[in-house]
Amino acid sequence: MKKVIIIGGVAGGASAAARIRRLDEQAEIVMFEKGPHVSFSNCSLPFYLSGVVADSKKLLMMTPQSFEVKHNIDARVNSEVIAINRTDKTVTVKNVVTGEQYAESYDKLVLSPGASPIVPNLPGSDLPHVFTVRNVVDIERLQKAVVEEDAQNIAVIGGGFIGVEVAENLRLAGRSVSLVEFAPQILTPFDDDMVQILHKEMVDHGVELIVGDGLAKITPSTITLNSGKEVAAEIVVLAIGVRPETSLAAEAGLELGETGAIKVNQNYQTNDPDIYAVGDAIEVYHRLMNKQTRLALAGPAQRQARAVADHMFGMTVTNKGVIGSSSIQVFDYAAAATGLNERTAKQIGLPVDAVYIIAPDKVGLMPSSNPLHFKLIYEVPTGRIIGAQAIGKGNADKRIDVIATLITMNGTIEDLKELELSYSPMFSTAKDVVNIAALVATNLMAGRFKQVRVSEVRGLVEEEAYIVDVRDVNEFAQGALKGAVNIPLSELRARMDEIPTNVPVYVHCRSSQRSYNAVMALNNSGYTNVTNISGSFLGISLYEYYQDQAKNREPIVTNYNFK
Amino acid sequence: MKKVIIIGGVAGGASAAARIRRLDEQAEIVMFEKGPHVSFSNCSLPFYLSGVVADSKKLLMMTPQSFEVKHNIDARVNSEVIAINRTDKTVTVKNVVTGEQYAESYDKLVLSPGASPIVPNLPGSDLPHVFTVRNVVDIERLQKAVVEEDAQNIAVIGGGFIGVEVAENLRLAGRSVSLVEFAPQILTPFDDDMVQILHKEMVDHGVELIVGDGLAKITPSTITLNSGKEVAAEIVVLAIGVRPETSLAAEAGLELGETGAIKVNQNYQTNDPDIYAVGDAIEVYHRLMNKQTRLALAGPAQRQARAVADHMFGMTVTNKGVIGSSSIQVFDYAAAATGLNERTAKQIGLPVDAVYIIAPDKVGLMPSSNPLHFKLIYEVPTGRIIGAQAIGKGNADKRIDVIATLITMNGTIEDLKELELSYSPMFSTAKDVVNIAALVATNLMAGRFKQVRVSEVRGLVEEEAYIVDVRDVNEFAQGALKGAVNIPLSELRARMDEIPTNVPVYVHCRSSQRSYNAVMALNNSGYTNVTNISGSFLGISLYEYYQDQAKNREPIVTNYNFK
Repeated sequence: MKKVIIIGGVAGGASAAARIRRLDEQAEIVMFEKGPHVSFSNCSLPFYLSGVVADSKKLLMMTPQSFEVKHNIDARVNSEVIAINRTDKTVTVKNVVTGEQYAESYDKLVLSPGASPIVPNLPGSDLPHVFTVRNVVDIERLQKAVVEEDAQNIAVIGGGFIGVEVAENLRLAGRSVSLVEFAPQILTPFDDDMVQILHKEMVDHGVELIVGDGLAKITPSTITLNSGKEVAAEIVVLAIGVRPETSLAAEAGLELGETGAIKVNQNYQTNDPDIYAVGDAIEVYHRLMNKQTRLALAGPAQRQARAVADHMFGMTVTNKGVIGSSSIQVFDYAAAATGLNERTAKQIGLPVDAVYIIAPDKVGLMPSSNPLHFKLIYEVPTGRIIGAQAIGKGNADKRIDVIATLITMNGTIEDLKELELSYSPMFSTAKDVVNIAALVATNLMAGRFKQVRVSEVRGLVEEEAYIVDVRDVNEFAQGALKGAVNIPLSELRARMDEIPTNVPVYVHCRSSQRSYNAVMALNNSGYTNVTNISGSFLGISLYEYYQDQAKNREPIVTNYNFK
Repeated sequence: MKKVIIIGGVAGGASAAARIRRLDEQAEIVMFEKGPHVSFSNCSLPFYLSGVVADSKKLLMMTPQSFEVKHNIDARVNSEVIAINRTDKTVTVKNVVTGEQYAESYDKLVLSPGASPIVPNLPGSDLPHVFTVRNVVDIERLQKAVVEEDAQNIAVIGGGFIGVEVAENLRLAGRSVSLVEFAPQILTPFDDDMVQILHKEMVDHGVELIVGDGLAKITPSTITLNSGKEVAAEIVVLAIGVRPETSLAAEAGLELGETGAIKVNQNYQTNDPDIYAVGDAIEVYHRLMNKQTRLALAGPAQRQARAVADHMFGMTVTNKGVIGSSSIQVFDYAAAATGLNERTAKQIGLPVDAVYIIAPDKVGLMPSSNPLHFKLIYEVPTGRIIGAQAIGKGNADKRIDVIATLITMNGTIEDLKELELSYSPMFSTAKDVVNIAALVATNLMAGRFKQVRVSEVRGLVEEEAYIVDVRDVNEFAQGALKGAVNIPLSELRARMDEIPTNVPVYVHCRSSQRSYNAVMALNNSGYTNVTNISGSFLGISLYEYYQDQAKNREPIVTNYNFK
């Protein structure tokens, strides 16, 4: 009979324990968790702050008792493993309530210690009104402080998934919230051109968003940023990132990898074959970057845990590496991403191009139809799909899951263009957004037309490039690019002689559908230097809006238009 | 300069015309449409009946005028092409308003004539209160009749997509609606075990659903069915299917295929290389059935149209065949399917197995979390994915699009199990429904456990098989399988000796998650003949409910439970 010890009782640990039990009824399974809870929904923690999750007890999916009676698993909470003794195959356990210590032997050991929030060594970071969010105890403490002190001003430091979700849920609870991010943008899975939509959404919902500035100091009622700016904050939430919990492993002589996380082989074994490791504490192989990376996500942790159980019982394990898929609700928007963004792809030297399209997520005449912003990144010249990002009020996640599937299966833009997805006017369009993106990409790669990005338009306006706006006259009147010439698509052929042939011509409409037709008409009429403005006026408005406010700069449009 | 004539101005024709224009600014493009409208949203027609689409003019996406000014395309409505003269490369056109006839020459001809509703030759089928739904004129006529006559009783004949959507939208408009389907079920993309959920949903919303009975006779106020049953109907809508419009092609000597539709090659050329054909009028290659089939869907029509334009201008065309993906809203449920269902796969002799799981579409503690019913069909022993069906109040379509992508890329259950999809508690679970289905499938194929289907449970109850219900005592008390023994999972190990070892044992819970753990515990404790009831009590309730009502038979449960 095997005795398996699992260190860590949340996503990875709990999944491994349950699968081991299903594979072996006789195995002795002991799971140690240093906190008071096992198997809670990490990813749902922020929703307790707004009341979307009304009762923090609901965050707990299992208890030590339910592990015992349902799975015959001995789950011990408040039990910190303080040493692994590999020679005699025991662990030393400390009851953090009583202080009692004891040894427990194992045949196989699974490490799922997770990661801990990074707390920077700054003046005031140890003050009692400074919080982190990692478990149920944390979120209960934070919520209690917010409510009891009726805190009006709260600063959240860090614009990753947790920071954004904490900021949003506190804002939904009616608090004044500042979100501070050191990098020039929040939510790094998104490229600069996509994330501005989410910046705007945060600001539109009353969050004070500060990007490109870092935390310097915390006092009981304010925070001071690197820029010198002071922000009122009776409560400060640190969400600047996590550090893999590797000390126990390192002290036991287990190898750490190049990323600083625990190193494992293809079967999630450490350099001690009787010790496995999973979850946020390990490094994983990124199959698009072709190197080890860290990825603190629940889905991969659960898959690793299952693989560990399977390998322990002699089954073949699949390790495809990771591609990194994620999604988040940001107020009224859903946002999702998979694979590499354009920034990262270029950083690692992949030859990629990208298209950004705006298309209806459902048939336009359906009441719930909304524009979906979709960016597709692909390798040139192979067309291999490398990544995608989607943001919209409808199902962004659905489109990203299709792309995640294609990436995993080594799909190309040609595959995506032909993809036969389910269609009903209530759910999509006959050619779905993702198909359209692939069509644009194949046209681009074939050289049938050229594009510039929304991020390049400011430069064009400033250098007074020749820009044609092919929207209707009334659309143009409601807001336009400064200096743009309005020639509606319906008048283009009649008025083509107004467009000079000896200068570069840039064309846009609202969402690039009409401008694409105009560009092709010009290209096929002897014009040799015509470029489509990808994203067009809607994309430009969304891209420029937040940055104009934040940088206090002159808009390049006479009026934004977000519709 | 090329002159292209297109016959048919809706999905296929309009798409081909626009793409041809983008590829060639000089081509002369003439599009003939025998009806009064071009480029309308076929798939949205039924929504006009409920007011979801308030104005029938919104169904029109383009007009002849907008084709002219935006794309320089000569779109002529009320213009029926009555002959193709292949020797002199002309078509004979009849203006259906004036009766005038004239010839128009072509270099290339594209046929996109669509399909017409089948009207059976039955007594009364030519009465003025009998309608079909194929275009904007049809839906306006139907709606006018419903409103002007304030029709209270309406019979819809045919339970395909259009029939169901027409019935639903008329019901939403407050009418009494009967839906009559000759086959034993509506919506043939779904298997019998899945479609019962939709049968129940129709009945729950007050539609009188009659399956397994056909239309025999129509009188001004009633219809009579094959069974002799009479149903009151002041208005009758025939939606029993469509017939490809092939007469023009056949008269011109163009070859028809084995399915009766127009035969085309891999580039969508007919046997006359200057004549292409697309859309509902042609037959297409089904890449899972490996034979020609007919598929009247908008997405494939648009892809074919684009391929035609590309081929006409010397570009390489991809023809991957079709897999058949579709989705539909049925009152509160979304339903979607892709690939082959189990019934069809078995009919054509594919060695397949299937899993049916019920899992939350989002993290359970999110307010909008609902069970998603998901069926996955895969080839044995390769694990190649053949098809899937999803039904739920949340995003069924999203899951089906992932499977459609995997099928296209020749994915297996092993690929699906590892798929790294985007996750946020608001959108999915860390292991998504589709991952879970693949895990169950790999366990099944590896022989780690056995299953029976919800459709087999009635037989088990009738033969008094030994059935263990591992739900909690209070769940059991609210409704259970007749004769089942209640041993909650939490008591299973303590009470295992109550379960006989010498007879087959069947296990279920609410959704099969707990029963799966129980089955594995029994299997690993020396039991050799234990079987999981896939779908469990929730699945059984949904499967049995409508059939019990329709067949007026004794329930096999003490009480249904749909939660």
